[in-house]
Amino acid sequence: MTTRKSFGSDNHAGAHEAVLRMMSLANEGDAHGYGDDPWTGRVASELCGLSGARAAYFVFNGTAANVLGLSLMLHPYEAVICAETAHLNVDECGAAERLLGSKLLTVATPDGKLTPGLVATRLGGRNDEHRAQPRAVCITQVTELGTCYSLAELRVLREFCQAHELRLFIDGARLANAVAHLDCTVADIATQADVLSFGGTKNGAVAAEAVLVMAEDLLGAVPFQRKQLLQLASKMRFLAAQFAALLEDQIWLRNAAHSNLMAQRLAAGLGDLPGVSVVQAVQSNAVFADLNPEIIGLLQRDWGFYVWDDQRNTVRLMTAFNTTTDDVDSFLASIRAASGSRV
Amino acid sequence: MTTRKSFGSDNHAGAHEAVLRMMSLANEGDAHGYGDDPWTGRVASELCGLSGARAAYFVFNGTAANVLGLSLMLHPYEAVICAETAHLNVDECGAAERLLGSKLLTVATPDGKLTPGLVATRLGGRNDEHRAQPRAVCITQVTELGTCYSLAELRVLREFCQAHELRLFIDGARLANAVAHLDCTVADIATQADVLSFGGTKNGAVAAEAVLVMAEDLLGAVPFQRKQLLQLASKMRFLAAQFAALLEDQIWLRNAAHSNLMAQRLAAGLGDLPGVSVVQAVQSNAVFADLNPEIIGLLQRDWGFYVWDDQRNTVRLMTAFNTTTDDVDSFLASIRAASGSRV
Amino acid sequence: MTTRKSFGSDNHAGAHEAVLRMMSLANEGDAHGYGDDPWTGRVASELCGLSGARAAYFVFNGTAANVLGLSLMLHPYEAVICAETAHLNVDECGAAERLLGSKLLTVATPDGKLTPGLVATRLGGRNDEHRAQPRAVCITQVTELGTCYSLAELRVLREFCQAHELRLFIDGARLANAVAHLDCTVADIATQADVLSFGGTKNGAVAAEAVLVMAEDLLGAVPFQRKQLLQLASKMRFLAAQFAALLEDQIWLRNAAHSNLMAQRLAAGLGDLPGVSVVQAVQSNAVFADLNPEIIGLLQRDWGFYVWDDQRNTVRLMTAFNTTTDDVDSFLASIRAASGSRV
Amino acid sequence: MTTRKSFGSDNHAGAHEAVLRMMSLANEGDAHGYGDDPWTGRVASELCGLSGARAAYFVFNGTAANVLGLSLMLHPYEAVICAETAHLNVDECGAAERLLGSKLLTVATPDGKLTPGLVATRLGGRNDEHRAQPRAVCITQVTELGTCYSLAELRVLREFCQAHELRLFIDGARLANAVAHLDCTVADIATQADVLSFGGTKNGAVAAEAVLVMAEDLLGAVPFQRKQLLQLASKMRFLAAQFAALLEDQIWLRNAAHSNLMAQRLAAGLGDLPGVSVVQAVQSNAVFADLNPEIIGLLQRDWGFYVWDDQRNTVRLMTAFNTTTDDVDSFLASIRAASGSRV
Repeated sequence: MTTRKSFGSDNHAGAHEAVLRMMSLANEGDAHGYGDDPWTGRVASELCGLSGARAAYFVFNGTAANVLGLSLMLHPYEAVICAETAHLNVDECGAAERLLGSKLLTVATPDGKLTPGLVATRLGGRNDEHRAQPRAVCITQVTELGTCYSLAELRVLREFCQAHELRLFIDGARLANAVAHLDCTVADIATQADVLSFGGTKNGAVAAEAVLVMAEDLLGAVPFQRKQLLQLASKMRFLAAQFAALLEDQIWLRNAAHSNLMAQRLAAGLGDLPGVSVVQAVQSNAVFADLNPEIIGLLQRDWGFYVWDDQRNTVRLMTAFNTTTDDVDSFLASIRAASGSRV
Repeated sequence: MTTRKSFGSDNHAGAHEAVLRMMSLANEGDAHGYGDDPWTGRVASELCGLSGARAAYFVFNGTAANVLGLSLMLHPYEAVICAETAHLNVDECGAAERLLGSKLLTVATPDGKLTPGLVATRLGGRNDEHRAQPRAVCITQVTELGTCYSLAELRVLREFCQAHELRLFIDGARLANAVAHLDCTVADIATQADVLSFGGTKNGAVAAEAVLVMAEDLLGAVPFQRKQLLQLASKMRFLAAQFAALLEDQIWLRNAAHSNLMAQRLAAGLGDLPGVSVVQAVQSNAVFADLNPEIIGLLQRDWGFYVWDDQRNTVRLMTAFNTTTDDVDSFLASIRAASGSRV
Repeated sequence: MTTRKSFGSDNHAGAHEAVLRMMSLANEGDAHGYGDDPWTGRVASELCGLSGARAAYFVFNGTAANVLGLSLMLHPYEAVICAETAHLNVDECGAAERLLGSKLLTVATPDGKLTPGLVATRLGGRNDEHRAQPRAVCITQVTELGTCYSLAELRVLREFCQAHELRLFIDGARLANAVAHLDCTVADIATQADVLSFGGTKNGAVAAEAVLVMAEDLLGAVPFQRKQLLQLASKMRFLAAQFAALLEDQIWLRNAAHSNLMAQRLAAGLGDLPGVSVVQAVQSNAVFADLNPEIIGLLQRDWGFYVWDDQRNTVRLMTAFNTTTDDVDSFLASIRAASGSRV
Repeated sequence: MTTRKSFGSDNHAGAHEAVLRMMSLANEGDAHGYGDDPWTGRVASELCGLSGARAAYFVFNGTAANVLGLSLMLHPYEAVICAETAHLNVDECGAAERLLGSKLLTVATPDGKLTPGLVATRLGGRNDEHRAQPRAVCITQVTELGTCYSLAELRVLREFCQAHELRLFIDGARLANAVAHLDCTVADIATQADVLSFGGTKNGAVAAEAVLVMAEDLLGAVPFQRKQLLQLASKMRFLAAQFAALLEDQIWLRNAAHSNLMAQRLAAGLGDLPGVSVVQAVQSNAVFADLNPEIIGLLQRDWGFYVWDDQRNTVRLMTAFNTTTDDVDSFLASIRAASGSRV
């Protein structure tokens, strides 16, 4: 492991110190298990206030939040339409297929974003018993490619879903970054969805995500699905406390805004370099850029980051709540040096 | 919620302060996700040293540890033999059935413990395609009734399993209490199993359990099963750190020994009271006792505990690592007072 | 294989010749697949007329009918209450657990029949997220022990289910025998259920069962569940034709009445023999009797039947639509001879 | 329904009369259930002789054969690589995902055929716990586009699979047509696979498919998987008898050769027509052709067939064992007439 800041993932950062401090505060005295404690209800209630959700539930990680959220909407013969690049499709080891029994109907996208037109390409075979029935659309906000749906795009998608009897689930592992980028409220995004996740872990938590249920008719099953899907924490107050810390003084938003800013600084710096092209709009804390493969090799000696597409030599550079301007500038200097040494 | 110590569950206690302290230590600097960090390998290795396991994996809770452990042993047409009272059967919302697809073949027991004779009653129908095929035996050490298998009992069960091509899984949510009670090593118990869980949460962790894989042929699938079963933490170091704290200075064992001692004190005090009978051997941090229902009612005004069997008026009283002698004595005084007021 | 009539199972009989004849008739010309043919709709409609069902669907076997029927009622966190002896629980290799993800909550019964009181013993833990939630009651009519629920018993059970938000599924693999025994209509039984199966195979079909959906709100999912559960026949007309044959001239009822009569004759004959006791009420085409184990051994040289309980030396003797009075008398003679030879 | 021959599907044909005749023969006397009868073993053995399989099992339909075959090879975290057009992916209502828990990794193909190069595009992420692990390749022989893998292509694919630790499953719903087209033996194809299905239904059976298990290490689980997947027929002899009929005098091969010939005749006739282009190689009993949409409309008044791709106006024309030269010529005449009337 390098001691330099990692640009590999926003989960390479540790926890925000306020999170650990709040967990210590939550450790006072005994409390009932499984959420019947003084923390869980209060923090869930705050999340509902922020988002307009009917209920908020804490789970351990993002894959679980996705599977739990979708479990509320689907019978196993019903399918989820999602981007080919969706975390749900690529990075969750087939959890959705196994745990829901449902098929994922994937769509190629240029930027990780679904549109009504793209969703429509997977709506064939409705009412045909031979076909898995499209029933939910899963989008990611921020997408896996670092892009954000605008509020207008979300509204259009939402209307399309309603017109076509599709539920809308938002994988919000980096929802805070989208809120910061769009300069909107959580509710502005959340109210477009039937269910969404609100990620804590990539935002500075230890291990906590919230599932926000917007649609009243989906409420009843949550406690049972959560337990059966292995997501019921006995000492729930420690999950709630992580969100309590992030909500206090809007740390969640400040963390997100900061990491977004660092990505902007990084992208701006890259834009000045010859032979480097930023290949996705920088709308969150990710920068996707094509680099010369030799430069990639030289950089990897000192810095941690992932090659996203080794055909095109696209790298993914993630910033986090604790990335500093020095980290960014130092990384840019390394690229410049590598570019020079190459010549 | 009462401010008095809860006898409701050992998960009503918070976390041991060493656990939270170690999590803060683990928060230094960046680290790769998903276990490729300086903490996870080291702590897993310590757990292997302690138990003789080939590999140790961290998960978020006990239900997950059970399902993950059993997933390594079973095809969906294969069944698990377990006690009717097993947590797996009663308290996990059917997670095993859903996530493994397997049937549970349950056995009534007087004390929560399986014996070869009891297991044998569920071995019918082998090689008969109409029957789910018994393939794993799941026992709990400490059992849900607070009792412990002796090492001799474990050996006999293990031999029976081997002779009948059955895998042995131990639900060790309270394994530390068993080790303390039996005055043995973790390995003494672990080496009898193919896979077992080693519970952290009830022992003072925030939310962490270890799955210890003893049988080499079961190793390959663990990472994939863990991910697909929603148990892969991105910031894994914080799970590892919880066990690091418990392992340091044998806090895990001292916590367990202390809570066992408090249960002994409680049982001894109850034994002196008229009209109270302790109905299970006290071999861990649980006391099961039959009380007069009126006394139960009076006690519940001030104290937290569960009525285990409302036909027989059996209550379950759990002690924890942070139960004090004063807590026990004060609770006993309340019973005495309730008994008096009743007369 | 013996050339003597088997008393092993009613599926040891072949198909009624009218069934094969009707399949040949259905073979005229081309027809659309998957049920969109001239046979399927007509026969399904006849079954609806007979039973009061909203819709009738054909599947290949009884296990499939059970799983499909229950799939309409259950989320995976919901459980089925059934008799310990239920085919669903004992003889289907855990298909329900795997394909539905649901837990079976079993109840010991003296005669294979559930009562409100017995069902009530498994209703604990409702609204408790740790427990699989009881949602369906599965009874078998005729039961695995050859007994029938009276119409009054069915009504009481139905009312209990309605009062407790439980769905009622009837495994009717031998429903015809119950109708014959009770001298009632199919509708008399069917209207007590939300969904039931109406068995063809044991009644003289080649391989065909009907799933009758009584509850309107359960209709929508059937085609998709049927397909996904591997039960959609492409040349559906041949399944429909089997029922067409059984329905014509009430062959289904005559077959059932005849096999019931043969069971009565057998039971009457057994009742006259010393050392033989019929241990379940004979209310269908099954006779359960305790025999001396030596006699069992002698009989098995010449006759096919199953020992149901080898602790109690209980044998199960099944008659079929093609069992003759000679078959019965000859079997009884063999027992008498065996009894004599034993003395 | 038109009384004219359907070109909609080979399952619009009824059963070959020899099949129904053999089922009547199988109806003699009683027989044990579930395959322990004089027919099942003998016919399974013949199928093994024909194919080199270690064991052959009968199931009810093609979707079931696919799911059962794949169930032998896969853990739920393991994935199947298949063509985007595969029946498994498109036409089985998500049965594989639900019943196996596995992800399908699909590949776009021009002709329905996978190649090592195409398979290789889905082999990323091996040993990465975030990814479903590619473990089986599922090909269809004859493909959904009517094309056949040559024996050389199969060998190359097989070698690629072996070199990359992939199992090979062949969906042989129309295997007979491939054997007829390639003028090879069943074994020539079967020995390339670990497991394959051999379709009866589209070849003249009522409802019967065989699962041929070539790999010895996959044998043990079949009976249990078959039962749990709802495919165990009680009166198994009637499934075996269907194959007995097809095997006698090589009816299976003659049926396939005839339907292939009718497709050749149809394609040849279409090739002579202006504005019609046959768009896939005709290597079985299917012809895919692009037609003017007005002609399609006119034809559909009198003839049954499916529009495969309504963007490109591609129709699929299937012949069957009972398609006659008159049927083909009459259909061609209708096209000619429609073409004329259009001008």
